[in-house]
Amino acid sequence: MVGGSIPVFDEIILSTARMNRVLSFHSVSGILVCQAGCVLEELSRYVEERDFIMPLDLGAKGSCHIGGNVATNAGGLRFLRYGSLHGTVLGLEVVLADGTVLDCLTSLRKDNTGYDLKQLFIGSEGTLGIITAVSILCPPKPRAVNVAFLGCPGFAEVLQTFSTCKGMLGEILSAFEFMDAVCMQLVGRHLHLASPVQESPFYVLIETSGSNAGHDAEKLGRFLEHALGSGLVTDGTMATDQRKVKMLWALRERITEALSRDGYVYKYDLSLPVERLYDIVTDLRARLGPHAKHVVGYGHLGDGNLHLNVTAEAFSPSLLAALEPHVYEWTAGQQGSVSAEHGVGFRKRDVLGYSKPPGALQLMQQLKALLDPKGILNPYKTLPIQA
Amino acid sequence: MVGGSIPVFDEIILSTARMNRVLSFHSVSGILVCQAGCVLEELSRYVEERDFIMPLDLGAKGSCHIGGNVATNAGGLRFLRYGSLHGTVLGLEVVLADGTVLDCLTSLRKDNTGYDLKQLFIGSEGTLGIITAVSILCPPKPRAVNVAFLGCPGFAEVLQTFSTCKGMLGEILSAFEFMDAVCMQLVGRHLHLASPVQESPFYVLIETSGSNAGHDAEKLGRFLEHALGSGLVTDGTMATDQRKVKMLWALRERITEALSRDGYVYKYDLSLPVERLYDIVTDLRARLGPHAKHVVGYGHLGDGNLHLNVTAEAFSPSLLAALEPHVYEWTAGQQGSVSAEHGVGFRKRDVLGYSKPPGALQLMQQLKALLDPKGILNPYKTLPIQA
Repeated sequence: MVGGSIPVFDEIILSTARMNRVLSFHSVSGILVCQAGCVLEELSRYVEERDFIMPLDLGAKGSCHIGGNVATNAGGLRFLRYGSLHGTVLGLEVVLADGTVLDCLTSLRKDNTGYDLKQLFIGSEGTLGIITAVSILCPPKPRAVNVAFLGCPGFAEVLQTFSTCKGMLGEILSAFEFMDAVCMQLVGRHLHLASPVQESPFYVLIETSGSNAGHDAEKLGRFLEHALGSGLVTDGTMATDQRKVKMLWALRERITEALSRDGYVYKYDLSLPVERLYDIVTDLRARLGPHAKHVVGYGHLGDGNLHLNVTAEAFSPSLLAALEPHVYEWTAGQQGSVSAEHGVGFRKRDVLGYSKPPGALQLMQQLKALLDPKGILNPYKTLPIQA
Repeated sequence: MVGGSIPVFDEIILSTARMNRVLSFHSVSGILVCQAGCVLEELSRYVEERDFIMPLDLGAKGSCHIGGNVATNAGGLRFLRYGSLHGTVLGLEVVLADGTVLDCLTSLRKDNTGYDLKQLFIGSEGTLGIITAVSILCPPKPRAVNVAFLGCPGFAEVLQTFSTCKGMLGEILSAFEFMDAVCMQLVGRHLHLASPVQESPFYVLIETSGSNAGHDAEKLGRFLEHALGSGLVTDGTMATDQRKVKMLWALRERITEALSRDGYVYKYDLSLPVERLYDIVTDLRARLGPHAKHVVGYGHLGDGNLHLNVTAEAFSPSLLAALEPHVYEWTAGQQGSVSAEHGVGFRKRDVLGYSKPPGALQLMQQLKALLDPKGILNPYKTLPIQA
């Protein structure tokens, strides 16, 4: 997905793996300052011992670095609750193309002294500067975490379940993920994970995180009663103990792994209006017919973010031609984003125009020319090839 | 404070007052798209009728425009809960210095297609482009709002009350404001507002916003019992009905008005480590002695943001000389910010260096030169005078 560690042509790969020290942690404010090479899972462990959590969590947490997370503006599983890194990152230290160390590594929640320069580097994929240290706001560790895994009879019911649970769970809702029946079949076939609920066209994973176990259980119980009673949900299971919570999350988190065992995978990561989120999956199944092995849709429904994946026995140019630019055009027709959280890198740099107007692409090129006039930072990536 | 509507020399003032239309509102996602001249309070009313709230709220809501809020990266009373505009603003339409309309007005929660250009304009005070439309994520309207107004025997107890209430109120805490005894005296003297609690050295206003009135009342009740029982708080009152909630908020929100009736006001808006937040107030009282009429401290303690105000019968250069650069040097010594939420404008442009290193100031100048080579956008503001 993210090819940052693989040279395409003549690039030099720079590793921050040994810049792995925590520089400070403030136990009242929850502000963590650390070097860019710290592994996300190790930071999670560090702050959890101090009764906080990292504001982001992703499947790759065991190996990804916080510097890379910030450089790619990683989304992930806690986005719905804690929002974008543009809000939670408080400061950065960045090495610019000319070797200058730009010190914007403050630990302040509020700072309006001039332009917020750190924002430039969040999500710019290393093309404007190299992030060497990060200051980030960590939320308090929730005292109670509950997970519900539910089966829904149709996508309309998935959407209604989302609206209902936003209303009834309110501030404790921390994730709303969905997957379709084909995802569940593949997770079962390739990873031998069994579905904890009756076979359904769609499955939803809801997580709550709160400060009072009793209150949270009561809110979730009332919601489940309503969802089952009104037919939004046909079957469901709940977990509060860590082992079962992890087991339910694995069904969702390991879809990528199951897909990779299914064959060659064409991957798309789209932001779409939530009502239209699944239409592209149905559309592609009809369009591709037997040319595709499987067409699946899953992802962060609460954020309007669909992971659309197509598997085939092997890579085929004709299947690719049936997918692209069709998927991008379809997304552009919905004013969606052709890269919601995965970023641009090498392979998507020429499709930016489906989600950004020419004026925006031009300003991006101007910023690149300003900050990296010799083009030495992550060359061939992120920006479209210039005419 | 913000002199955006007053020409200093030869500037042309541009009003967006007639660009006051809501362009769209999405009732599932809560995403509002509107023109820049919409008044914040009118937008609040609009989204509240649809069961959402604006992610920001400030004293000036009755007259300020959303475009100005975004251009100045306004903080305000809901920052603690809903965070910075860098996280809640999803898209902007901006007119650049050369007349190009930059359309980044998406309504997507996630979009990693290239650099996040809108971030450049949030907080740049109109010096890089003119915001003409805003897309912003509105949180669901809380079903229950409670306010507690408490008296604390010392600043150490204010801090402990903050830590305790973060733990016990968790996800429903939506504001933690403080004011000192002098603020309360001035609000009483000039505005005839009576304190609802016994006289104390410090006062704290705590607001909760949640989805379940019963659960919220129980959490707040337990917290108050603990705070009173352990001596963190010596007296307190609570409100759930709108009228009393407003009355308690008025004590905090009308401090600015009371100060302006007290004489000439020297105003500072600082971000500081929360433990040191009040030290500068004590320091200044000793330093200024009878030269100042009153030295007061109040503000958004939960965000580490102090409003430090000094009143005098009239403006005096010698009092100013006693205050500046002392206040800025003191703040710099704590790695604080000399402008937390109020911005830079005309008067503070030459003190940026207390909070930002030379490399950052240089990059700001380069961005200004790139986006506004002729210097026609909000001239004389925000950036230091170049050598």
